[in-house]
Amino acid sequence: MDMSIIVPISGIFALLSAIFLFYSVKKQNPGNEKMQELSSAIRKGSMAFLKSEYKILVIFVIIVTLLLYAASFIEGSQMEWGLSVSFIVGALFSAITGNIGMRTATMSNSRTAEGTKKSLSKGLSIAFSSGAVMGMSVVGLGVLGVFVLYTIFNNTSILFGFGFGASSIALFARVGGGIYTKSADVGADLVGKVEAGIPEDDPRNPAVIADQVGDNVGDVAGMGADLFESYVDSIIATMALAAIAGGFASIENAVMLPLIIAGFGIISSIIGTLLVVFGKGKNLYSVLRNSLFLATFLTALFAGIATWYFIGSLYPFYAMLAGLIAGIIIGLSTEYFTSEKRKPAQDIAKSAKTGPATVIIQGMMTGMISTIVPVLAVVAAMLIAYYFAGFYGVAISAVGMLSILGVSLATDCYGPVADNAQGISEMAGMGKEIRGRTEQLDAVGNTTAAMGKGFAIGSAAITSLALIFTYIVTANFLLPEGETLSLSLGDPYVIAGIFIGAMLPFVFTALTLGAVGKAAYAMVEEVRRQFKELNLLNNDKNKPDYERCIKISTNRALKEMILPSLMAVISPIIVGIVLKPAGLGGLLIGSIASGFLLAVFLANAGGAWDNAKKYIESGNMGGKGSEAHKATVIGDTVGDPMKDTSGPSLNILIKLMSIVSLVFLPLIIALG
Amino acid sequence: MDMSIIVPISGIFALLSAIFLFYSVKKQNPGNEKMQELSSAIRKGSMAFLKSEYKILVIFVIIVTLLLYAASFIEGSQMEWGLSVSFIVGALFSAITGNIGMRTATMSNSRTAEGTKKSLSKGLSIAFSSGAVMGMSVVGLGVLGVFVLYTIFNNTSILFGFGFGASSIALFARVGGGIYTKSADVGADLVGKVEAGIPEDDPRNPAVIADQVGDNVGDVAGMGADLFESYVDSIIATMALAAIAGGFASIENAVMLPLIIAGFGIISSIIGTLLVVFGKGKNLYSVLRNSLFLATFLTALFAGIATWYFIGSLYPFYAMLAGLIAGIIIGLSTEYFTSEKRKPAQDIAKSAKTGPATVIIQGMMTGMISTIVPVLAVVAAMLIAYYFAGFYGVAISAVGMLSILGVSLATDCYGPVADNAQGISEMAGMGKEIRGRTEQLDAVGNTTAAMGKGFAIGSAAITSLALIFTYIVTANFLLPEGETLSLSLGDPYVIAGIFIGAMLPFVFTALTLGAVGKAAYAMVEEVRRQFKELNLLNNDKNKPDYERCIKISTNRALKEMILPSLMAVISPIIVGIVLKPAGLGGLLIGSIASGFLLAVFLANAGGAWDNAKKYIESGNMGGKGSEAHKATVIGDTVGDPMKDTSGPSLNILIKLMSIVSLVFLPLIIALG
Repeated sequence: MDMSIIVPISGIFALLSAIFLFYSVKKQNPGNEKMQELSSAIRKGSMAFLKSEYKILVIFVIIVTLLLYAASFIEGSQMEWGLSVSFIVGALFSAITGNIGMRTATMSNSRTAEGTKKSLSKGLSIAFSSGAVMGMSVVGLGVLGVFVLYTIFNNTSILFGFGFGASSIALFARVGGGIYTKSADVGADLVGKVEAGIPEDDPRNPAVIADQVGDNVGDVAGMGADLFESYVDSIIATMALAAIAGGFASIENAVMLPLIIAGFGIISSIIGTLLVVFGKGKNLYSVLRNSLFLATFLTALFAGIATWYFIGSLYPFYAMLAGLIAGIIIGLSTEYFTSEKRKPAQDIAKSAKTGPATVIIQGMMTGMISTIVPVLAVVAAMLIAYYFAGFYGVAISAVGMLSILGVSLATDCYGPVADNAQGISEMAGMGKEIRGRTEQLDAVGNTTAAMGKGFAIGSAAITSLALIFTYIVTANFLLPEGETLSLSLGDPYVIAGIFIGAMLPFVFTALTLGAVGKAAYAMVEEVRRQFKELNLLNNDKNKPDYERCIKISTNRALKEMILPSLMAVISPIIVGIVLKPAGLGGLLIGSIASGFLLAVFLANAGGAWDNAKKYIESGNMGGKGSEAHKATVIGDTVGDPMKDTSGPSLNILIKLMSIVSLVFLPLIIALG
Repeated sequence: MDMSIIVPISGIFALLSAIFLFYSVKKQNPGNEKMQELSSAIRKGSMAFLKSEYKILVIFVIIVTLLLYAASFIEGSQMEWGLSVSFIVGALFSAITGNIGMRTATMSNSRTAEGTKKSLSKGLSIAFSSGAVMGMSVVGLGVLGVFVLYTIFNNTSILFGFGFGASSIALFARVGGGIYTKSADVGADLVGKVEAGIPEDDPRNPAVIADQVGDNVGDVAGMGADLFESYVDSIIATMALAAIAGGFASIENAVMLPLIIAGFGIISSIIGTLLVVFGKGKNLYSVLRNSLFLATFLTALFAGIATWYFIGSLYPFYAMLAGLIAGIIIGLSTEYFTSEKRKPAQDIAKSAKTGPATVIIQGMMTGMISTIVPVLAVVAAMLIAYYFAGFYGVAISAVGMLSILGVSLATDCYGPVADNAQGISEMAGMGKEIRGRTEQLDAVGNTTAAMGKGFAIGSAAITSLALIFTYIVTANFLLPEGETLSLSLGDPYVIAGIFIGAMLPFVFTALTLGAVGKAAYAMVEEVRRQFKELNLLNNDKNKPDYERCIKISTNRALKEMILPSLMAVISPIIVGIVLKPAGLGGLLIGSIASGFLLAVFLANAGGAWDNAKKYIESGNMGGKGSEAHKATVIGDTVGDPMKDTSGPSLNILIKLMSIVSLVFLPLIIALG
């Protein structure tokens, strides 16, 4: 019956919107020759990275597919061959969204810069449309993928494969992209700004294009894949819980509800998007905020009606609302702890009076204290959701948090486009007025990016919780009659799992921090070499070798991403085999708790350091070049890989380990 | 039977040894007038701090005692009035050991300095004897306290009050002492060494005596109280598990076994101590190590025999061995990650080439990676201990780890005495040769202190695990017939508790880091003021006002310790009431997992930064005064409050929250 027709329709609508927005951006004026040249260099670099990355991913995907297929033949494993199919589809869809997002973002940067010539809101409209292409592709392909696979296989546990595929691509995209973007950034800044004293985005700096590429690679492709994963994982977990746990008047309706909520979320997001694309508001920030609020309100309204009509009770709707509100609270808290207009970042700036050591300590404190609100918000959402609708409610609350992803992701992906536009206007020498406008765009982008980061972390935590509950329910479903998995804290295997699980995010963070360090070091060497050998600073005729820098970032990032990524995939399987399903359950909750805390700590400490520096740069505490400024530059350098590489990668780590556990659970039980 | 007669005998023996060693130190030559004057100033400052601290503690103890007593009248609470008695005794005993330790340490510093005039081993003997007074007092009072209270009440749950009393004093001693020592240290260094350019321990620096006092307050009183708590908690947990869980041929024997092992540990520790006190070895480090190894070997031997004789099985002995070995492994791992002779600290020194930001990142990585070995060691010890003897085995393994505390604590407390002796020789201008010798003593002290810190963290983790299992068993014992507390990860209250529990160590760390910052800032202002107003650097006639600095450290430390300490005591009670015993159980495991990881991270990152600086100071990478040196000084300043205040305080946090939960569990169940 058939409100569920909304699902494929909304998915197709989302893709059509994406296509429409893509062409509406494409027909904009791409700017003068110099701008087009720069934009093309950035696009080439970005696509080159994706291509090299996909070469590695294809191998990974083939191996895992074969393993999954082989596992279906192990006697008693209960792993179905369909898992390998849905794994490939998940990986493919995630890769496609990344590809679309990157193509659009790298096409829009020069157009956004050119658009701001006309008006600020024109620039906003282009940059935002470009982000919305990514947002709509993610939700469209997400909903369609899950819907079609479920229609074919009619088995929710097959869908875990889809989540696993999405997670795998997300992991490599986030970790690889994060290493790329920070190594290029640090390399460009350390040698260009600090050593040679030339401005940011100076075209004489050989790493400057790699730096722009990094914004796309990390913040567009990485962020998109991350949220694609959360989006589909939350839907899949809800469907699986409905199918296995039961307790509804119509199980089939309960299974379809998350897809339907997602469908209405898409429609609402499209409406919210139009508000920005065709809007003419002067205050950029409030235009973006209003579109988010409108989409949220409409989604809640539609979801309430659908739940009532479909389930015959508003309880799951209350659960969904809890998730939606928790997401907003976490976003606001992130904004408070990192904004240069608020006390925490300003306190860090003040601590710069006594030098870099106090800046570091103050920033660490800020990051640690900032964990309170997100943790309590997630805990409250979980308890409320559970109260109303059990495990299913917790999963629905994650769906609720992510239902407006179509528009909220657009706000995130708008940031790097604005950043690129700012870079291009600088490099193309577009004059002071235009640069002022792109700077305004960029500044709003930074605020929305900070909120988006908080949102990504919160949704990762609650999605992982939904996956853990799915794990428990699935395990008890799979276990032979009479056996149950209680996952009691009185079981030393569970405790052992919790300890090891809590340790993994620390180790993972150490590895990703180290990876950035090594890649950045290679970049520093290269930029120094070019400055010296080509005499770039004093000889206008010699052109810097941008490609070489891009190649270094690409190769290093891909090389360094392998160890931490494999650790994430393999640890749960090993722990599951050695410490049984009980230890694996402990591992999951331990890693979520510690990974969530570390992710918030790393993101907010890093964000606060960044903005403490900006606070001083805008003329406080002695301004640019003062001793206090130097101290905050050190803080910002420490925070950069924390907030842009390690922190966001932890989101994937915790989701991926949960979904890997779900996929391999039947095998682990069979081996136990 | 009565092998249990060994318990009071060994306790009395320990106290007699302490008295004997105290007088043997006292009769040593206290040095010339100048040295005695300095030593007396340090003693006065230390005792003044203790006195002010005890004034606050007395109020706290009275309030809690009354509350405990009142709680025994709440209907159905099952809290016995004896808890209030054992709470007072626990608090009193902990305070007495702190007092004895401080008196001895502050008496021994000038005598150690004078002793090194004769020979290095003479100096070692005095400093170590002084540490052994503390070690023997701790184990003697610990064993006697538990034994007497158990003999009187014949009820193991009354003993939780003793642990609670010990934990409360430990908390204030660690947090207050930690804030004191680092604020004085940072204040003295930042203004004296960095701004004024005078050497460390220069008598013109007004904070120099406060700095020496801090070593005693933090590293003697704080460390002693911390390990007194672990020691008695592990014994109490074992006794309670034996009494409630049962499953032994003779329950009474199983209850007494931990005390008997502790008794044999004391005898072995006395023998080990004699090896150092009367030894004449040239290599200080190997003398200390040999005494530890001898004590370990003898304890294992005696404990094996006692277990066999008493329980009729060697299984609990294997559990004990697992704990003992895990303790050694954690100590060695700490040594590896922090020693200036090893790769991690040297890598940090090398990263100083690219400035302070890379030093900070490299140090954080080191701290995070260094969690692997301690976590796996504790997990392995727990699983092995459980395999052989269930929950009881896990508790016994904690007892095993701590059984040689009499001698291992002596090695820890020897450090600050050597440090003080070094300071006195510097301030009294004792000449280069003597200073060289005290430096050697001090250097060995630093290594043993690092190992001691790792050991303290590991023992806190495994003791807390023993307490958690005790919590589960006790809860199921107290619950009405038919109800059980399964603490399943499928219970959202448990998950909520785990999240909040994992968050608390982050918040606690932020609070203690902030406290040091504020106290240090007040000290910096005061030292600057005195330098300026009294013109101390250029006018020999004006004497610095040492007392004022001591007063500032004291007042600030005591003021700042209150908030984090109350948080530690109150959080478990609130969570227990709101989220029921299930949520409280989650809180405990969450806090242990995240607290243990953070403690290792903070201690090892801090230690590695410290020794990276020392590595450069000993002539590498450009040596003292180079840019690389300055970068590592920043790392060291960041690491100081991490390793000496926040990290060690976390040990107490996790134990205290567990013991508070055990004490108030009957009330929480009654209110549920």
